[in-house]
Amino acid sequence: MQWLTGFNGSAGSAVVLAGDFEGKGAAIFVDGRYTLQVRDQVDGRLWDYEGVPENSPARWLGKNAPAKARIGFDPWLHTRAWVEAASCELAKNGGELVAVAANPVDAVWQDRPAPSSAPALVHDDTLAGQSSADKRAGVAQWLNDEECEATVIAALDSIAWLLNVRGSDVERTPVALSFVIVNQDATVDLFIAPEKVTPELAAHLGNAVRIASPDAFVPALQALAGKRVAVDRDRSVTAIFDVLDAAGAEVVTRTDPTVLPKAVKNAAEQAGHRAAQARDGAAVSRFLHWLSVEAPSGQVTELAAAEKLQGFREETGQLRDLSFDTISGAGPNGAIVHYRVSEETNRQLAPGSVYLVDSGGQYPDGTTDITRTVWIGSPDAVAAPSAEIKVRFTRVLKGHIALARQTFPAGTKGSQLDTLARQHLWAAGVDYAHGTGHGVGSFLSVHEGPQRISKATGGQAGTEQELLAGMILSNEPGYYKTGEYGIRIENLVLVEERDIPGSEGAWLGFETLTYAPIDKTLVDVDLLDAGEIAWWNAYHARVLDIVGPQLSGEALVWLERACAPIPVDSVVECA
Amino acid sequence: MQWLTGFNGSAGSAVVLAGDFEGKGAAIFVDGRYTLQVRDQVDGRLWDYEGVPENSPARWLGKNAPAKARIGFDPWLHTRAWVEAASCELAKNGGELVAVAANPVDAVWQDRPAPSSAPALVHDDTLAGQSSADKRAGVAQWLNDEECEATVIAALDSIAWLLNVRGSDVERTPVALSFVIVNQDATVDLFIAPEKVTPELAAHLGNAVRIASPDAFVPALQALAGKRVAVDRDRSVTAIFDVLDAAGAEVVTRTDPTVLPKAVKNAAEQAGHRAAQARDGAAVSRFLHWLSVEAPSGQVTELAAAEKLQGFREETGQLRDLSFDTISGAGPNGAIVHYRVSEETNRQLAPGSVYLVDSGGQYPDGTTDITRTVWIGSPDAVAAPSAEIKVRFTRVLKGHIALARQTFPAGTKGSQLDTLARQHLWAAGVDYAHGTGHGVGSFLSVHEGPQRISKATGGQAGTEQELLAGMILSNEPGYYKTGEYGIRIENLVLVEERDIPGSEGAWLGFETLTYAPIDKTLVDVDLLDAGEIAWWNAYHARVLDIVGPQLSGEALVWLERACAPIPVDSVVECA
Repeated sequence: MQWLTGFNGSAGSAVVLAGDFEGKGAAIFVDGRYTLQVRDQVDGRLWDYEGVPENSPARWLGKNAPAKARIGFDPWLHTRAWVEAASCELAKNGGELVAVAANPVDAVWQDRPAPSSAPALVHDDTLAGQSSADKRAGVAQWLNDEECEATVIAALDSIAWLLNVRGSDVERTPVALSFVIVNQDATVDLFIAPEKVTPELAAHLGNAVRIASPDAFVPALQALAGKRVAVDRDRSVTAIFDVLDAAGAEVVTRTDPTVLPKAVKNAAEQAGHRAAQARDGAAVSRFLHWLSVEAPSGQVTELAAAEKLQGFREETGQLRDLSFDTISGAGPNGAIVHYRVSEETNRQLAPGSVYLVDSGGQYPDGTTDITRTVWIGSPDAVAAPSAEIKVRFTRVLKGHIALARQTFPAGTKGSQLDTLARQHLWAAGVDYAHGTGHGVGSFLSVHEGPQRISKATGGQAGTEQELLAGMILSNEPGYYKTGEYGIRIENLVLVEERDIPGSEGAWLGFETLTYAPIDKTLVDVDLLDAGEIAWWNAYHARVLDIVGPQLSGEALVWLERACAPIPVDSVVECA
Repeated sequence: MQWLTGFNGSAGSAVVLAGDFEGKGAAIFVDGRYTLQVRDQVDGRLWDYEGVPENSPARWLGKNAPAKARIGFDPWLHTRAWVEAASCELAKNGGELVAVAANPVDAVWQDRPAPSSAPALVHDDTLAGQSSADKRAGVAQWLNDEECEATVIAALDSIAWLLNVRGSDVERTPVALSFVIVNQDATVDLFIAPEKVTPELAAHLGNAVRIASPDAFVPALQALAGKRVAVDRDRSVTAIFDVLDAAGAEVVTRTDPTVLPKAVKNAAEQAGHRAAQARDGAAVSRFLHWLSVEAPSGQVTELAAAEKLQGFREETGQLRDLSFDTISGAGPNGAIVHYRVSEETNRQLAPGSVYLVDSGGQYPDGTTDITRTVWIGSPDAVAAPSAEIKVRFTRVLKGHIALARQTFPAGTKGSQLDTLARQHLWAAGVDYAHGTGHGVGSFLSVHEGPQRISKATGGQAGTEQELLAGMILSNEPGYYKTGEYGIRIENLVLVEERDIPGSEGAWLGFETLTYAPIDKTLVDVDLLDAGEIAWWNAYHARVLDIVGPQLSGEALVWLERACAPIPVDSVVECA
């Protein structure tokens, strides 16, 4: 995608038409997070910019491709769900999708990097909290209940969770390229490049996991002829369905059975997250202290700041990777929701401006994701944030607190909580164009389904998944003023059962997992009510408890100042 | 339904199996509002009680009817959408729905009342704000856009809106039994009993509306053979589809084109609502004053109170009907969400108890719906509400205020606002088992679609309809303690455009339409923040402005006391 278009965001798709035609012959499709970035990175003379979900490749083709067009696609890159939806759209115009034997981009991409040969690694049962054998037994039981003889698992994080294995084949997500077939007898066929399989891994997997090379995957699918096989249409490439259909297997579409157990963290995973978050919070706090010392000089750049932050994480000695490319946005760059700093866009953190940093680390015991927005002061401490900036920041904060404190009945979906984080911004006639919260994995993907906190439908839509005790989500409302600054306050939260005196029925709430100071300089305390100030003070007292013991010297002095409570008598009015 | 089962709620369905079988042979299906009432009114020895949407008649039949059962139904009573869903459920068990020629209940119902022969009435264009000719031209334009030659309109309130006609064939909803076919040339065929058509009505309808008797409806449908006809599967009985299909018409399912324009009130309808609400608010205020004088004696019953309230509405000289049967619930009866008082259940309003009254009137210029919950004091004024009752009432009030004050971006759906009204109850571990708001008609149905404020899915689910300026909804959070008391605070609100200084994009908010005092005796002022107290004081100042001039003597003195502001210095803490 980046090689072809120049776009390097985390999500997008592109269409290229062949031959001569009217209008543009290519289009790139990105969601609301990338509306600005795509225009910076992709040449508008060659590409149409299209937004999803308002538009889609198939709908664009319906309008721009000649009638009855045959559109090629790689069946090993697109899910069955995508192919069904796109075919339906194309059919309106008499067009059809045609699976190509060889990927046309591969054919012309000369300097393509070789596929990773990194070894797959054992993920300790003590960290996973459940042995792979237990997990496989659970899937086998599910196959039994569904009267299926096997299920094909193609999602790399599902495979990693099921086998308690991690890898480094994909940047920022510790998974190993592979496919899995789980059989009703709880045995597994794992298809993975031989060079990735160390003796230690083979020993960990044991006899119940038969290891074969990727070439053996298609024949293994064909060998399921006549069997009833469950496959996830949203998480499996369409080629898997095609091979099974051609071989005469009975394919039933089911949600990948590992998705929900993976999302509901067990006690060991929860403990791991708390440890990783405490470690990561100290690294972020060190960084924020460093920033308070260095940035007012005006000599710190977005790239330098991101490198420094990574350095503090590496100093923990436990960092395996970042959980995503650090979003280090000074001034106007902070308004680009998923901004990725590069040499071309690198800006100074100017004294008297807002700086947004959204980052995370992959640790063996947990995946972190935290956003802090800080005021870059001047050496003489004269530069102060404008009233507008403080009011906007405080309204984002009030939304963050409202969500963090809310208890809700068992059965509540993330879509029912989304507005709580927006209500104070809406009261001022502003909003943010992204969801409020996404699921997070345990030393896996920093964007993990199925739960979300967002609108029920439309852009950045949520899911109908109820929130369950043990799920981890982000709480990240924001505000973005294009061309000026961006604000986002993000902590991770853990869904937990709550025993509320006098309550009726079963109730849930959130335990905040992320601990690092929020910049008081940007808060208009007069807009906080007593309950919000109580949350602020309790949160920062906990930051000091958890992070303080990991700091010393100037950094500790800075942390103590940053965590000093807001006096409660400063309540002026309740917005 | 009531004749067959005894259940007299506003919504429900029943299934009766034939012959001998295992277990019960009949079931009644009601939603969460009627869970308690159905057990009071329907004999559990003969009927299974089932909840919707958790269960459905078809699903129940799947479990309880013999395999391959043939289930009779009246195709003139069930919508196409219901028949499709039920058939699909039944098919799983090999069963099928069979349309019966004659309704089996009619066959055995001896003392059935004769159908109403009440005349249909002209609804003045000055009240409607748009002539029927304009509305019909709009539908004709829509037919043109949809490339349809005609549309069949079966929803009685849609017909009433389209033709600017009202009637009294249905209790509580001023509609006339009829069917309509709108043709592409903007002419209409109206099928209605001749005795309902007065000369005045015929003159009002004019030559473009051809009037025929109901017997002519089926032949007229058959005459659409070969034409492309739009029909609403959710608002039209399946018989209409069957006749059109058999005749060889091309049926396309579309939403009734009058639904959205009917929901978006024009300036005249908005002005009418304001006038009707002011009139109704005075009647309710007179009633609340009367209650404050009479109830402490302990001699007032639920029925007497409901009759007195109706009397005050009749005194306005403009009441055409109630908009629904008054819900007059003393103590535990108040916890029955849609309680309907009867001689059997009639209770005294006991001094030292909570009384809930949910009522509304049908006036030529608007339909009202208001709920007030009041504390019944004792003559010596000793009896005071418990702390629990005051805290629960105040949390309901805080949710009502949060929704009433919230501004939101254009495009917001009711499902995004529902939690705002629940958040303060959720914080205490309690909730209410009904939606937060329903649409309301203009001298039409008090429950009018398509907009709602409720969860996006599941029980009492909302719709995907965006809220549009001009729509009217109720704002009615509540709390119900089974066996003890019920609390609900309901006002109607009008969606209006809002110009917020410094806002980005288009914004909407609510204008409250309903004006009558809320009982301060039940408020724990310490739980209100300054913004909430400001809302309370502004609301009651407006009540005094609007209702005061319509009262005099003791009632006015009482109103002035009831509307006295809460001193702002009484803010203790912000919950």
